[in-house]
Amino acid sequence: MTTTAVKSRHLIGLKGMPKSEIEAILDRAGYWEAQPVAASSALSGKFVANMFFENSTRTRFSFEVAEKRLGAEVLNFAAAASSVQKGESIYDTVKTLESMGIHGGVVRIKAVGVMQELAERIKAPLINAGDGNNEHPTQALLDLYTMRKHFGAIEGLTVSIVGDIRHSRVARSNLWALREMGASVRFCAPDNMRATELAEYAPYVGIDDALQSDVVMMLRVQLERHEGGLFGSAEEYRAAYGLTEERAGRMAPHAIIMHPAPVNRDVEIDDALVECGKSKIFEQMANGVPIRMAVLERALLG
Amino acid sequence: MTTTAVKSRHLIGLKGMPKSEIEAILDRAGYWEAQPVAASSALSGKFVANMFFENSTRTRFSFEVAEKRLGAEVLNFAAAASSVQKGESIYDTVKTLESMGIHGGVVRIKAVGVMQELAERIKAPLINAGDGNNEHPTQALLDLYTMRKHFGAIEGLTVSIVGDIRHSRVARSNLWALREMGASVRFCAPDNMRATELAEYAPYVGIDDALQSDVVMMLRVQLERHEGGLFGSAEEYRAAYGLTEERAGRMAPHAIIMHPAPVNRDVEIDDALVECGKSKIFEQMANGVPIRMAVLERALLG
Amino acid sequence: MTTTAVKSRHLIGLKGMPKSEIEAILDRAGYWEAQPVAASSALSGKFVANMFFENSTRTRFSFEVAEKRLGAEVLNFAAAASSVQKGESIYDTVKTLESMGIHGGVVRIKAVGVMQELAERIKAPLINAGDGNNEHPTQALLDLYTMRKHFGAIEGLTVSIVGDIRHSRVARSNLWALREMGASVRFCAPDNMRATELAEYAPYVGIDDALQSDVVMMLRVQLERHEGGLFGSAEEYRAAYGLTEERAGRMAPHAIIMHPAPVNRDVEIDDALVECGKSKIFEQMANGVPIRMAVLERALLG
Repeated sequence: MTTTAVKSRHLIGLKGMPKSEIEAILDRAGYWEAQPVAASSALSGKFVANMFFENSTRTRFSFEVAEKRLGAEVLNFAAAASSVQKGESIYDTVKTLESMGIHGGVVRIKAVGVMQELAERIKAPLINAGDGNNEHPTQALLDLYTMRKHFGAIEGLTVSIVGDIRHSRVARSNLWALREMGASVRFCAPDNMRATELAEYAPYVGIDDALQSDVVMMLRVQLERHEGGLFGSAEEYRAAYGLTEERAGRMAPHAIIMHPAPVNRDVEIDDALVECGKSKIFEQMANGVPIRMAVLERALLG
Repeated sequence: MTTTAVKSRHLIGLKGMPKSEIEAILDRAGYWEAQPVAASSALSGKFVANMFFENSTRTRFSFEVAEKRLGAEVLNFAAAASSVQKGESIYDTVKTLESMGIHGGVVRIKAVGVMQELAERIKAPLINAGDGNNEHPTQALLDLYTMRKHFGAIEGLTVSIVGDIRHSRVARSNLWALREMGASVRFCAPDNMRATELAEYAPYVGIDDALQSDVVMMLRVQLERHEGGLFGSAEEYRAAYGLTEERAGRMAPHAIIMHPAPVNRDVEIDDALVECGKSKIFEQMANGVPIRMAVLERALLG
Repeated sequence: MTTTAVKSRHLIGLKGMPKSEIEAILDRAGYWEAQPVAASSALSGKFVANMFFENSTRTRFSFEVAEKRLGAEVLNFAAAASSVQKGESIYDTVKTLESMGIHGGVVRIKAVGVMQELAERIKAPLINAGDGNNEHPTQALLDLYTMRKHFGAIEGLTVSIVGDIRHSRVARSNLWALREMGASVRFCAPDNMRATELAEYAPYVGIDDALQSDVVMMLRVQLERHEGGLFGSAEEYRAAYGLTEERAGRMAPHAIIMHPAPVNRDVEIDDALVECGKSKIFEQMANGVPIRMAVLERALLG
């Protein structure tokens, strides 16, 4: 495990980020959460580019709210409307935007490995907003923030992550950060959704065991990725791995439900649970803004 | 007729909005029209999201100019670049953006009934920027503003709305507001473009009668919606219901031409009429900005 | 040759723009390049619309950085998400946005001739961000700025432009401005990429002669436009007209490589040359921002 994350003000991933740094980000997010939603001057005069080479609603929007609350000038770039479609390289695009004077960039991208290459070749600080199935560090940070806020501390918690671990950057970023913070992570997934290379860090458990956790984190399942796999239909998936009302009733009273969203109602989670008392789903989204403010400050102000 | 519009600071429709409230919006728009185009601080620090689940040029742009003239922080969301495409519910998307701290939202959407559901479940004030064939309240308000500016008062005016009434939210919002303000509304449409449920509020007249009005409001005809209907071609439609130069010549000297735009030149209105002396078409667009400023203030400042 | 460019504060093209005016823009860009990247108040309260009827990454982004550095309010309009798709005319769209109160517009468009029509009918100052194969004035101005910065003066320079001259607005805008400034322009292109109507202004030379210039400006080749033409593959094109490492080695020590980007690495220019010492490619992009700031000031402040 290398400690690439601390070499610069880039935020490429949480793998290797020390506990002290994670805590500093969570603490700073706490400061911002306590402020009213309004434009501050923390990043006044700074230009930030959101460079989304893969579509996203909530993540781009959340970053943009964060950037504007910090008083930054925001520029949005979406690949679908760009020459990237015509074969221009990602590097050339990011380098181009950097040449125009941006002070920092937020990048979402499909291909794994490109973020690391960008971080090595681009001087402006970059924040990973999700790269393939590798990392989604701000999502995991907001998840940790939500857990710490609810439980007071992360150390000692048992967190079960349920769903398509293999394709999930959310699972990976949470795994690295939760272990560093002293939590115990368990995965729950059908065979064709398991990531065997992660088995040494988190055991696979059955769905009944997964329910016996402080945190049950459901992942969005994209059944279209698994044609001809174990689960031909949403109903079958829900029956085997979905967080149904019946299953939620077996969770401990103090335990919470999390989900990175968007949810597939009545597939991986029952409709009635999305806004139930145990659910932190919309609170997670709310917490994403102060977390991203803290991460943007860290990147641009050092 | 219920008075849902006044229950909250949402602006879902004009049906049921009392005359006093309509007049208050028109008066406030008059104030803003008199101000130079520049950024004010009326909504400084407020975050407004334009959530367009259906494409639009002029309406989104008009709202954005209004929001920026009020000094708000603006975030744009277009469904085509979003996970809504992947089946996420409209409610979840709007609730997500609300969770991130926006103070108000502008929503355009195809499905009828969803705006009302959103208004009941979302706390942040929402403004309807057009929902299916139901309502387009800011369009009708800017139409009324344009009429009042030209004629001095709306009471007693005769307004003929010509075209595809059945599919028109503009016709419906104008109908409710014009009747409340004491104007007399008449529709003119071929059989397959009539809305029978509205016949009790406005009589259907022929095109020659429609020309004998204070206001002749032409609607955009979307012939592609009427395949196999009465009109197989733009030429046939123009001959039967179009506002040709010859027909415009039979309008009263004081009467005006209106159109919500975009126009189909030489289909529902002749090219030479779009910018003629009787036409208020581009003035309507200009008036849309102060109307939307007034509506945004009402929604966000109460 | 008419002098349309100086009739108004529109910037439609460089053809006919006098040397004094070009120099004034370059000088003002020099002022802005020396300022830190931050929001100024030069265009505070002014509303600028970027109206891109043709997709673009870098040009729209560069204009937007320029606009925001000048403190303007920026509205983006992209045709793909607009009613222009439904047959609305370009003129109606631009006139609509003007009606909403914008103080100036930046327009990119495919069709040649429309910019001139818009300039005659729209009162708000318009800046051409590229129209078909006609002109791309801000690109040429940033190219001249880059040359002047490197060589101290433009007069007396020999500039070879290599590639698809026929379809290139960059070649045309550079041709007009470089000749006005006293530089000598030469073209280098295969037969099917030549613009015969320009032959009286710039001779066609072979690739070996083109290398013997102060500036070798490579154009992006879009091989998909030339199916069945001389070059069936990128390799063939590279062999005949590409700036390979071997060819770059034959350029004079003081000579520079330019390219309007995006580059096709290893087609018209070798990968290793893009960021080599002779290359000004990313510096061109950096210079685009102060050039556009100068052009926007000229248009809006007059």
